[in-house]
Amino acid sequence: MAKNVIVIGSGAAGMTAASTAKERDPACKVTVFTEDEDIAYSPCAIPWGIEGKSAWSDIVMHTPEFYSRERGIDVHIRTSVESVDESAKTVTAGGVQYPYDSLVIATGGKVFVPPVEGASLGNVFVVRTIRDGKAIQSALDGAANVVIGGAGVIGLELAVSLKDMGKDVTVVEMMDQVIPRIADKDMADAIQSHLEDLGIRFVMGAPLQSVNGSGKVESVTAGGVTYPCDVMVFATGVRANLDIPRALGLDIGVLNAVVVSPTLQPYRRGRIVPDIYVAGDLVQCESAIMPGPTMSQLGSTAVKQGSVAGNNAVSGEKMLFGPVASPWVSVIGEKQIAGTGLSTSLAAWYGIDVVAGKATGLTRARYHPGGTELTVKVLADATTHRIIGAQIIAGEEATGRIDWLTAAAINGMTAEDFAYRSENAYCPPTSMVQDVVISAVRDLCRKLHQ
Amino acid sequence: MAKNVIVIGSGAAGMTAASTAKERDPACKVTVFTEDEDIAYSPCAIPWGIEGKSAWSDIVMHTPEFYSRERGIDVHIRTSVESVDESAKTVTAGGVQYPYDSLVIATGGKVFVPPVEGASLGNVFVVRTIRDGKAIQSALDGAANVVIGGAGVIGLELAVSLKDMGKDVTVVEMMDQVIPRIADKDMADAIQSHLEDLGIRFVMGAPLQSVNGSGKVESVTAGGVTYPCDVMVFATGVRANLDIPRALGLDIGVLNAVVVSPTLQPYRRGRIVPDIYVAGDLVQCESAIMPGPTMSQLGSTAVKQGSVAGNNAVSGEKMLFGPVASPWVSVIGEKQIAGTGLSTSLAAWYGIDVVAGKATGLTRARYHPGGTELTVKVLADATTHRIIGAQIIAGEEATGRIDWLTAAAINGMTAEDFAYRSENAYCPPTSMVQDVVISAVRDLCRKLHQ
Repeated sequence: MAKNVIVIGSGAAGMTAASTAKERDPACKVTVFTEDEDIAYSPCAIPWGIEGKSAWSDIVMHTPEFYSRERGIDVHIRTSVESVDESAKTVTAGGVQYPYDSLVIATGGKVFVPPVEGASLGNVFVVRTIRDGKAIQSALDGAANVVIGGAGVIGLELAVSLKDMGKDVTVVEMMDQVIPRIADKDMADAIQSHLEDLGIRFVMGAPLQSVNGSGKVESVTAGGVTYPCDVMVFATGVRANLDIPRALGLDIGVLNAVVVSPTLQPYRRGRIVPDIYVAGDLVQCESAIMPGPTMSQLGSTAVKQGSVAGNNAVSGEKMLFGPVASPWVSVIGEKQIAGTGLSTSLAAWYGIDVVAGKATGLTRARYHPGGTELTVKVLADATTHRIIGAQIIAGEEATGRIDWLTAAAINGMTAEDFAYRSENAYCPPTSMVQDVVISAVRDLCRKLHQ
Repeated sequence: MAKNVIVIGSGAAGMTAASTAKERDPACKVTVFTEDEDIAYSPCAIPWGIEGKSAWSDIVMHTPEFYSRERGIDVHIRTSVESVDESAKTVTAGGVQYPYDSLVIATGGKVFVPPVEGASLGNVFVVRTIRDGKAIQSALDGAANVVIGGAGVIGLELAVSLKDMGKDVTVVEMMDQVIPRIADKDMADAIQSHLEDLGIRFVMGAPLQSVNGSGKVESVTAGGVTYPCDVMVFATGVRANLDIPRALGLDIGVLNAVVVSPTLQPYRRGRIVPDIYVAGDLVQCESAIMPGPTMSQLGSTAVKQGSVAGNNAVSGEKMLFGPVASPWVSVIGEKQIAGTGLSTSLAAWYGIDVVAGKATGLTRARYHPGGTELTVKVLADATTHRIIGAQIIAGEEATGRIDWLTAAAINGMTAEDFAYRSENAYCPPTSMVQDVVISAVRDLCRKLHQ
């Protein structure tokens, strides 16, 4: 089954696809094309890189030389794919034609920059690649005032890193809450308040009106007020990079991303396109919580999709990529915030009425030193009582708890079933005797029966 | 529905039953009898108390005065229940008769002390109550050599506390591994090796032969060798306290504990006994993993049972206590060890063949500072491929991960289903992009298909 596999894109999805294909069939030839100059790094680590908590060289998992030497994978960096010829089964990149038997499209997403005046001025950046991170880092030298456009988790993580570096930080957000869409307002407000305590300024419900300056940014106007600004960073969310899918005429879904089969093959006018696989931030996923489409632009999802796409590309097998609940977590200042499944606003998008339970306690026994406050909110469908989402804020150990609630949600547990059957491991240094997760679900049961 | 509810026992089960009953019906009279002098404390915290990391007064959640004043519950400490008269519906305690409408038996467990010569010498203790803890603490003053009988989690936690206090610590264990029964040998050996690095001596596969001394313990003989000993502590496991159940002729199960209905009512010759409920360490539970009996002598289980028993005792409702997977966790030195469901040896007890998957990684992204090694072992039934147990060793964040695997096991997920459907929340400071839990299950899938 030795084959020519070409992968376009060198993020988590692309490099996982390449490695999986080569591991599955060491005789196959695997070639990766990428416009980036660094590969196989974690975009989630860029705020830590800018702050210097992690070295840039550490964030990059492997170099192209490593892939060539250790895995026999050719990686062409700084190389655009100009076209794909499906009938000839070739890719043209850097002016050269390369044949493929299977093609994996893993071109990820692009930071969405709102079309405001001055967005192309000097010292205005997006935050996506290590190149972006390094550019921001050098522009920060001598800069006093930074404005971040967008209060999603990346924007907030970056805000904390910049504040730690001694900058004056203003976050401008169009919506009326931080972490919009995936976090509920009450949970988001707790995070915003924590960041305000750290001295970060928030301009909420304020669409960015203009970036001002001559040559370089000097100020930013939002909500009718103008803020001094030496460096502006857009962290305004990621949209699927559809350049190649559109050129190939692949079907694009209601969420403006590529529709794929469970085997991660794209469609054209409703029929599976042979020999092409798609993985990563440009894929429209199926929700594990509710029948319907969802986006899951997470590194963890990209790796899982890359593994399925790489396996199927090289073997022709029909390994399946499952529906997603998309658990997420972010460390923002001294707080961790995590979520899974649907938020209240996402549930409304699906047309679902929600009942919420909430509890606050500690991450350790009351008397054990070092514990932190732990707030858990759990959402159920008001009709079926199924757990459809949850969010957690804590000083520690939010991740395992959200993975636990994810397992409950994807298994279709109702609130009542969870309260009846769930147990938590307990010892004084790691939880309360009844974990706050269970307390929140018990509160949810009370609300459902009111 | 106002009633007289009497609770015998003041541990987690008893005090939760009392509080739940009073909360459910504030008009009812709730009386607790206990032989202990401290109530509502966490026995799990006693090693921390002995070491002084937690104050004794902090470990005690509430005093009898608190219960009387704040919750209207009468607690009679240092009071033995001499008899229960089921036909008169009275309890005789301290020579006085008290009437009841509902009785909750929550008399917990007793530390099993093996019948060896010298076990009743001075400075020989068990570790169960705060009284025990304080007695050990004063005996340690000036003591150099301590021998701990039993290498279960309480014995090991205590060993670390005593080593931290500068004592020479020897642990004597009859089995050939620490944490026998609930941990697999490979995982247990890693913990033992960590404790040996801390300077704790282990005498394994060695039944205790005698405790030697005149008046007070001077040495302990085990495996043919005699070890100097100023203080000896038995942490040799807990057996159900069956004094009252036996006096009442209640049915005792194959695991030598009280058989109960899902409503936590005991049986006599196979028929439910009216107006009596049982909760805590003396109850034989049903396994959530495999049809069959199991013990779950955990604080978390006691609280859950106390809540059901207290509710049903006061209301006559039929709230159900579910089957248990009994997740557990312990902090031992720098390591956390956690487990859920069946170990390999418990699976053998149920007659089940096991296949194991295992993976080692980190608790954070490779490049993120502060991560610790994380080893996850997951067990599946070789026939059905269902996940039936798991164990974790890590420097941090073992608890949430074991709760996650518990949710998978109680929902009957197979290894293949888990690998297909599970997701982990990811950010560099709290997990690898593919969490080690998922890596371990993927390894398990490979083993199942070999």
